[in-house]
Amino acid sequence: MTPTLQRWFPILQWGSYYNRSLLSADGVAAVVVTLMLIPQSLAYAQLAGMPAQAGLYASMAPLVLYALMGSSATLAVGPAAVTSLMTAASVGAVVQQGSVAYVEAALMLALISGALMLLMGAGSLGFLANFLSHPVISGFVSASGLIIAASQIKHLLGIKLQGDNLYQMIPQLWQQLPSFHGPTTLMGLCALGLLLLMRLQIKPFLKRVGVSHSTADLISKAAPVSVLLLSIGLSALWHLSEQGVRVVGAVPQGLPPLTLPGQSSNNSASRWAEQWSLAQVLFMPALLISLVGFVESVSVGQSLAAKRRERIDPDAELRALGLSNLGAGLTGGFPVTGGFSRSVVNFDAGARTPAAGILTAFGLAFAALFLTPWLFHLPQATLAATIIVAVLTLVDFNVFARTWRYAKADFIALFLTFSLTLVVGVEAGLIAGVAASVVLLLYRTSRPHIAVVGQVPGTEHYRNVLRHKVIVQSAILGLRVDESLYFANARFLEDTIAAQVAMRPGLKHVILQCSAINDIDASALESLEIVNTRLIAADVKLHLSEVKGPVQDRLQRSQLLTELSGQVFLTHHQAVQSLM
Amino acid sequence: MTPTLQRWFPILQWGSYYNRSLLSADGVAAVVVTLMLIPQSLAYAQLAGMPAQAGLYASMAPLVLYALMGSSATLAVGPAAVTSLMTAASVGAVVQQGSVAYVEAALMLALISGALMLLMGAGSLGFLANFLSHPVISGFVSASGLIIAASQIKHLLGIKLQGDNLYQMIPQLWQQLPSFHGPTTLMGLCALGLLLLMRLQIKPFLKRVGVSHSTADLISKAAPVSVLLLSIGLSALWHLSEQGVRVVGAVPQGLPPLTLPGQSSNNSASRWAEQWSLAQVLFMPALLISLVGFVESVSVGQSLAAKRRERIDPDAELRALGLSNLGAGLTGGFPVTGGFSRSVVNFDAGARTPAAGILTAFGLAFAALFLTPWLFHLPQATLAATIIVAVLTLVDFNVFARTWRYAKADFIALFLTFSLTLVVGVEAGLIAGVAASVVLLLYRTSRPHIAVVGQVPGTEHYRNVLRHKVIVQSAILGLRVDESLYFANARFLEDTIAAQVAMRPGLKHVILQCSAINDIDASALESLEIVNTRLIAADVKLHLSEVKGPVQDRLQRSQLLTELSGQVFLTHHQAVQSLM
Repeated sequence: MTPTLQRWFPILQWGSYYNRSLLSADGVAAVVVTLMLIPQSLAYAQLAGMPAQAGLYASMAPLVLYALMGSSATLAVGPAAVTSLMTAASVGAVVQQGSVAYVEAALMLALISGALMLLMGAGSLGFLANFLSHPVISGFVSASGLIIAASQIKHLLGIKLQGDNLYQMIPQLWQQLPSFHGPTTLMGLCALGLLLLMRLQIKPFLKRVGVSHSTADLISKAAPVSVLLLSIGLSALWHLSEQGVRVVGAVPQGLPPLTLPGQSSNNSASRWAEQWSLAQVLFMPALLISLVGFVESVSVGQSLAAKRRERIDPDAELRALGLSNLGAGLTGGFPVTGGFSRSVVNFDAGARTPAAGILTAFGLAFAALFLTPWLFHLPQATLAATIIVAVLTLVDFNVFARTWRYAKADFIALFLTFSLTLVVGVEAGLIAGVAASVVLLLYRTSRPHIAVVGQVPGTEHYRNVLRHKVIVQSAILGLRVDESLYFANARFLEDTIAAQVAMRPGLKHVILQCSAINDIDASALESLEIVNTRLIAADVKLHLSEVKGPVQDRLQRSQLLTELSGQVFLTHHQAVQSLM
Repeated sequence: MTPTLQRWFPILQWGSYYNRSLLSADGVAAVVVTLMLIPQSLAYAQLAGMPAQAGLYASMAPLVLYALMGSSATLAVGPAAVTSLMTAASVGAVVQQGSVAYVEAALMLALISGALMLLMGAGSLGFLANFLSHPVISGFVSASGLIIAASQIKHLLGIKLQGDNLYQMIPQLWQQLPSFHGPTTLMGLCALGLLLLMRLQIKPFLKRVGVSHSTADLISKAAPVSVLLLSIGLSALWHLSEQGVRVVGAVPQGLPPLTLPGQSSNNSASRWAEQWSLAQVLFMPALLISLVGFVESVSVGQSLAAKRRERIDPDAELRALGLSNLGAGLTGGFPVTGGFSRSVVNFDAGARTPAAGILTAFGLAFAALFLTPWLFHLPQATLAATIIVAVLTLVDFNVFARTWRYAKADFIALFLTFSLTLVVGVEAGLIAGVAASVVLLLYRTSRPHIAVVGQVPGTEHYRNVLRHKVIVQSAILGLRVDESLYFANARFLEDTIAAQVAMRPGLKHVILQCSAINDIDASALESLEIVNTRLIAADVKLHLSEVKGPVQDRLQRSQLLTELSGQVFLTHHQAVQSLM
């Protein structure tokens, strides 16, 4: 067993054997990831409705903090597409985008989300992520991809669009489309075309000219930087900003600032009241962002770890992500998570330890210190194109047909999440999906298989009367429940026994064969007590047979066994023999 | 199989053989129940914050309508303690008690609740009531009993108290206690003492003087009427209302009016907008009232039916309760359900068919037409005493110790529901309880038992390596999952396999023994696909053994079996033999 301190701070493990060869591997990975992260950070800041520098800030402190507590060697933490969209949707619902209050609310969101993740990690509550079933996540991510792409159309065409869902955006788009801004649209579409071309053609091309598979992969991942440079060059050369093309503009040069909640307001009393009410409004969005971010991060981390037969610790991941988000909230960022593409690039580029993340943070710090003036002329349309190309991979329509074929209940959850996310918004979609999963789960388990059993002639076996030729006694009813008994199916058991007894006028004994019952919760216990009482009133005795050890132990702590009108038998056959 | 029309309208079944002997039995029961219902209806109207006549109205149309569609022969529908409290809490949160708008909102609540129950019944959604696990219901009902008793203290002592929870009421009570109204308090405490005495002593006394057990029971149930009559007499004789004792006052004489939503306002456009926004606010409370009312009703109905070896149909009950609530909403009532005490009295008094309910409705119509002037002098303190005595039976503290001993998880749900209902309110308590049950369910099932299995020497059996001396191969890992795979435990399976594989450097094959897996949902399928992919990357093959028929059928409709790196074996032994 790893000591607690090392479990909480995995850096104490890998730090103890860190050496020059690991450093050089991590250094190479850091250079590649930095090149990839500069455009991505700016783009996700734009998606989240934050100023450009917030994207860079959100990729620095979180990377360093993750390295202290994270259990994945290669996960790269920072702004990600879906969490950035969720940030924009939840903060935009409270504060007007573009204001100081908006930035502060995003910081608050990161802080709450970080605190929640730390708490969940400390309390081993990672199982809460199980509420997000696979169909819900698929539907949510696909719909989010579409909304993200739609939200960037305004930057791509230089028009104005508002809204968090397609229901709000499509009519506006229809109205605004004719008034697109020529130069912006040209720049946007060219960037989009170039990026798509790179994504589709650069790898095959590089392979044809003899570049190795993994190098080709890395070059294609870092290629968006060239589009970025090209756009900046053209924009500066042709003074596009003077022609109405919206550019990133002045980005403050320097390292991340220390940002505390509510620091912009002066009056300290009203400040705390305001911050508190803001925190209450942002609680639910922060919880959803935490769960979605955690699921994304753990899936990526686990996939990468498995390739090297390593493993990650979900609770450690929660704590590390929590710390990263607290860091993001305190240094001018916004909610972060372990991103898919950046982590894969980090892995492929040969990162060996989380030190690669620390080195990447240095790379980004260098960019924030010295490269930000160069970003002035970067057209927002180019960033929009970067986002659109990135999120296209999120949208997966095959999952609909696959899930429909496989399981109708899962399809309902998938479709509900997808359509509500698109039409109403990210929060509504996610909550409805979770609710649907839970309702469908209860529906599935509320009617367990309950078989009437009879004796297979010449044996001591008792089997389902519908499937086998068996002997039954008219005064004895044998029932086998093929499921643990708990609140979702307790009443069904009551109903079934009531129905079976009502059909059999001469009945004297009911024997419940408990061979498949692994647990009986308090609701089911109550139901069994009710069944016992009702059967006494109807002059029928209730017996149990083949009760498992742990269930028997638990029942000993209740009144059922003393109040039971019948007996508890070791085997069903003994029960039938002694009651015949 | 019963034809659909007769299943929907059970009156067509029992109506066809209805005769004079059934009529006389039902008639006797109706008289007893009417005597019991007059004080109870008035008391629950007071509890719900409604005018006295609303209590009578809510016991007429619903009883008749229930008789058309209800499947229980003896259930008596009308206002009940807990649903009346929930009505007061939810309507009181929207409109000031005592206003016309309050009455209209209560009618709306009954209409929505009725519509929801009809829909749930038509769609066989009765399983939704399973969300209310037994600990949640116990905690909720006990706390409701305490709140109801506390809410009546103001009437008992003639003071002013507001609030829906003890947190609001206790400090006020502390403040107001010294200013109690003498004559009111005297009347209230005497009525309370008399009712308690009757409840505790009348049955033993009657039995001692030779009255039969069941007759004694009925007399003790109808006895509150005598306290009512005595109070009215004394109040009229001593002109208590002139001394500041609050009395019921003028109750309109006549049959229930037809009440349509929003009929009190004049402007029809704003009327519908108002009604619509009111309906939205009341939706959640109506859903909770429907579920609670349904659970109460079905439990009572099923208990009584079982005594005569009859049974009830939960979906028919939902439809009948839905119709009853629509009736209550359209005839000046408020939400109703099958009450416990009145149904038991109806049963004990010999009711044989729902016609007893129709006759009871006639009895109450007689009361509404001719007896209401007599109610003028009835002190509210007497009604408060009636309510307090009635709800004392709801409070059960033993359940805490019992549940704690039996299962800690259930205790958490119980305690949370109880304390939040008391301190925050009925809705918060119920919702928190349901949420806690679902979270605890997910927690319990998120870590299924997964055993590493090995061969029992000399046999073809494979058992848990921790419990048995078995043979294992270092290149083969056999895992048996003792639970169906679904979204709550899918990720745990991923984690477990990753951990087991990470521990075994020489591993070549993983065999999943699926003998205990009854279902694999889309989330678990995805996890298996991910496990398969990750194991391929780690150069380990994944095999399945002993897959059940239905699971195999379902997997055929997915990609898993074609993408599986290993094979599917009929038995675990075959798998090990061919991979060794």
